[in-house]
Amino acid sequence: MFPSKTYIERRYQLKKTLKSGLVIFPGNAESPMNYADNWYPFMQDSSFLYYTGINGIPNLYFLIDIDNDRDILFGNDATPEEMVWTGAAAPMADLAAKSGITSVKVVNELEAYVRQKKQKGQQIHYLSPYRADTKIRLAELLGIKLAEVDKNKSVNLIKAIVAQREIKSDEELVEIEKAVNTTVAMHTHAIKNTRPGRTELQIAGELQSIAIGGGGNIAFPIILTKNGQYLHVHATQNTLSEGDLVLCDCGAENAMGYTGDMTRTFPAGKKFNALQRNVYDIVLNAHNSAVAALKPGVHYKDLHLLAAKKLVEGLTDMGMMKGNADDAVAAGAHTLFFQCGLGHMMGLDIHDMENLGEHYVGYTPDLKKSTEFGLKSLRLGKALKENFVVTVEPGLYFNPFLIDAWRAEGKYTDFVNYDELEKMKNFGGIRVEEDFAITASGSRLLGKPLAKTPEAIEELKNS
Amino acid sequence: MFPSKTYIERRYQLKKTLKSGLVIFPGNAESPMNYADNWYPFMQDSSFLYYTGINGIPNLYFLIDIDNDRDILFGNDATPEEMVWTGAAAPMADLAAKSGITSVKVVNELEAYVRQKKQKGQQIHYLSPYRADTKIRLAELLGIKLAEVDKNKSVNLIKAIVAQREIKSDEELVEIEKAVNTTVAMHTHAIKNTRPGRTELQIAGELQSIAIGGGGNIAFPIILTKNGQYLHVHATQNTLSEGDLVLCDCGAENAMGYTGDMTRTFPAGKKFNALQRNVYDIVLNAHNSAVAALKPGVHYKDLHLLAAKKLVEGLTDMGMMKGNADDAVAAGAHTLFFQCGLGHMMGLDIHDMENLGEHYVGYTPDLKKSTEFGLKSLRLGKALKENFVVTVEPGLYFNPFLIDAWRAEGKYTDFVNYDELEKMKNFGGIRVEEDFAITASGSRLLGKPLAKTPEAIEELKNS
Repeated sequence: MFPSKTYIERRYQLKKTLKSGLVIFPGNAESPMNYADNWYPFMQDSSFLYYTGINGIPNLYFLIDIDNDRDILFGNDATPEEMVWTGAAAPMADLAAKSGITSVKVVNELEAYVRQKKQKGQQIHYLSPYRADTKIRLAELLGIKLAEVDKNKSVNLIKAIVAQREIKSDEELVEIEKAVNTTVAMHTHAIKNTRPGRTELQIAGELQSIAIGGGGNIAFPIILTKNGQYLHVHATQNTLSEGDLVLCDCGAENAMGYTGDMTRTFPAGKKFNALQRNVYDIVLNAHNSAVAALKPGVHYKDLHLLAAKKLVEGLTDMGMMKGNADDAVAAGAHTLFFQCGLGHMMGLDIHDMENLGEHYVGYTPDLKKSTEFGLKSLRLGKALKENFVVTVEPGLYFNPFLIDAWRAEGKYTDFVNYDELEKMKNFGGIRVEEDFAITASGSRLLGKPLAKTPEAIEELKNS
Repeated sequence: MFPSKTYIERRYQLKKTLKSGLVIFPGNAESPMNYADNWYPFMQDSSFLYYTGINGIPNLYFLIDIDNDRDILFGNDATPEEMVWTGAAAPMADLAAKSGITSVKVVNELEAYVRQKKQKGQQIHYLSPYRADTKIRLAELLGIKLAEVDKNKSVNLIKAIVAQREIKSDEELVEIEKAVNTTVAMHTHAIKNTRPGRTELQIAGELQSIAIGGGGNIAFPIILTKNGQYLHVHATQNTLSEGDLVLCDCGAENAMGYTGDMTRTFPAGKKFNALQRNVYDIVLNAHNSAVAALKPGVHYKDLHLLAAKKLVEGLTDMGMMKGNADDAVAAGAHTLFFQCGLGHMMGLDIHDMENLGEHYVGYTPDLKKSTEFGLKSLRLGKALKENFVVTVEPGLYFNPFLIDAWRAEGKYTDFVNYDELEKMKNFGGIRVEEDFAITASGSRLLGKPLAKTPEAIEELKNS
């Protein structure tokens, strides 16, 4: 937890922006696996965490009553009988004090409090919930129907939060860098310990143990797969073989909830083959080109298109594409190989603030999110600002279903040499991803450097 | 997955018992962590799994239309664009065929199907949901209010499922034993790799990696703590020190969803001290006494009370309790040290079928669950049958809050020497847990034997 002044200042800014109303942050509850009391690891809501710093405790509510200038934590102290199960728990008053919150109430006072404010005509601000139980709790609390919960969300609150959370403070950058360094340790382990005969899950399990040992957990399900041609395939019981290309996309969340997110692609055996290396170099060139262009004022969408052009140029050199690269990108032909976005913001969430709505987080009224295949998966399009934290993660994915389907449709035949792609249908996919803080004049790589060139990866594998 | 005849036979038995109606098993959906598309590891509902065998795929519904003798899987095949993200997915028809299900429909036909059957007066059977999103889906599907979902659950369905799932078939025992053996590997690692200077989370992470490497995951959050005096304290960032006693309660779930659940308690350093060893021997004696008495016809509640008596006798020998052991147990004085139950059924759930209601699973109309402190946490009271699978897990927990509170209240002063307990307030807790299948004449330990005596544990630690 940061010093209380951090949270007091964050709340002060939020109040200043919103000016009036009652803001409700429902903390997350435990999430049941296969019966009510068998839970997944607890994860606190990131906006709750941002404004309170109180992590690891379910069933809390945090209210900011702007009109009466009061911050109130609603939570129940553990009873002696609960402590038979959970052990000593810090009193709510102590937690609140650490966060600079002066008022604490028990949860069953919450409904009456909110209803009274509502009756007095105070505006209620809350975010649209992403968990079903939160949706039910909000509907009950506000006395509205389930269907109305999302409709009545506060767009002003969303905009105010985005404006704060997108700019990372120095103390946040320190925490993010801790998470990235744990992520670097995970990748180092993956590169060194992947070899033919092991299963994807064996290695993925070891990576998760590193994230947990770091005091947090994984920030998202680990992608560690010889089927990197599919974008979100998690580790399976597949056994790796000599010649396989392994795509590993993983990240740690640290004890305070800050995240890291990196991808490396490496051979299951000791060396890349020539084809793998050629494709790798194309992706790495696209990656480096986009990174070199990171700076305040640049639209991230333009970096996405720059990376796409570099990918097309590389594929053209290899004979898989043809024609003018700019025209190919304008037409969307690159989306046969690069179906997703170049990256996203990162912070307390791995896709930072995705629950607030990507059109508010990554776009502006002047730059709306595209609905086209490819661009519609670009989570960030707007101009970068100093102290944004973003990932850069171009890739080439040779998806056999898509190749066959688009060939059958005759799609992009001006730009794609489908005959040349036949040999790529078992190739897999390659992605190179790192995390950057935007500085006044450019960007800064977060975390310790990790092998990135084919040579460095082979050297690390064989060290 | 078992051969299709297993699932066909299970469904046949269910239809025979229920005789009529439409049974709805909503499969689980993905469970969001911090935004809608960042998910916890998927866990299928255990009853859905029991009757279909289809694991690892969210958003399915399985219906058994008893009156028309039809089994229908409702699920959507992946679209080519979804396969950009998820890769090749088996068609629903193939999954259904493996389970012997002859009819497949897309999910948006579900509501009309159910509403039509309901209008024709067919009785709808479903289980009370334990996840909020399932509750919302059932309310929408049936056109009822959220508050009515639990009320309208089918008690006949619950009873029919319990009668089937509580008796484990030979092929289920093979799967359970696989999960228990992975659990044994986790404990072996924990005992060997716990030492002063490491954190609880470092070791817990390694145990999870073994469960994941086994092709499944952990069956419940890992308890690995120097604060074993509290019953459900998960691993934390605590660093272990020489002299600490470490309680590790963990279990694997295998690829088919079957579980293992074991506990060992061991020193952080190389050896138990004399006091730790004395208390350990009391718990082990209680454990062995209960295990020796396992057989069909015996009420598990009586085994719980037998273990409690053995614990009281041991504590009396040590001077911490006094008076007649039977009287102490009858009065509940043992609950100062043994606040929970002796064990539970185990199968596709770690507390098997807990979502169906413990009064249906562990008790009978003639033997109702007690509401007293201690016994109210005993999940299983009824008579054992051949092919039940149960855990046996007595323990002694020296909870300083409870000791202080009950001393202040003057509780059980006829049986407890509170002065002698002062030295125990930093002791911790000890539990010894194993899993057993009930046989015709007794019981069989599941999984490979694992060090259990203090001598064997010290030998394993120092091997």
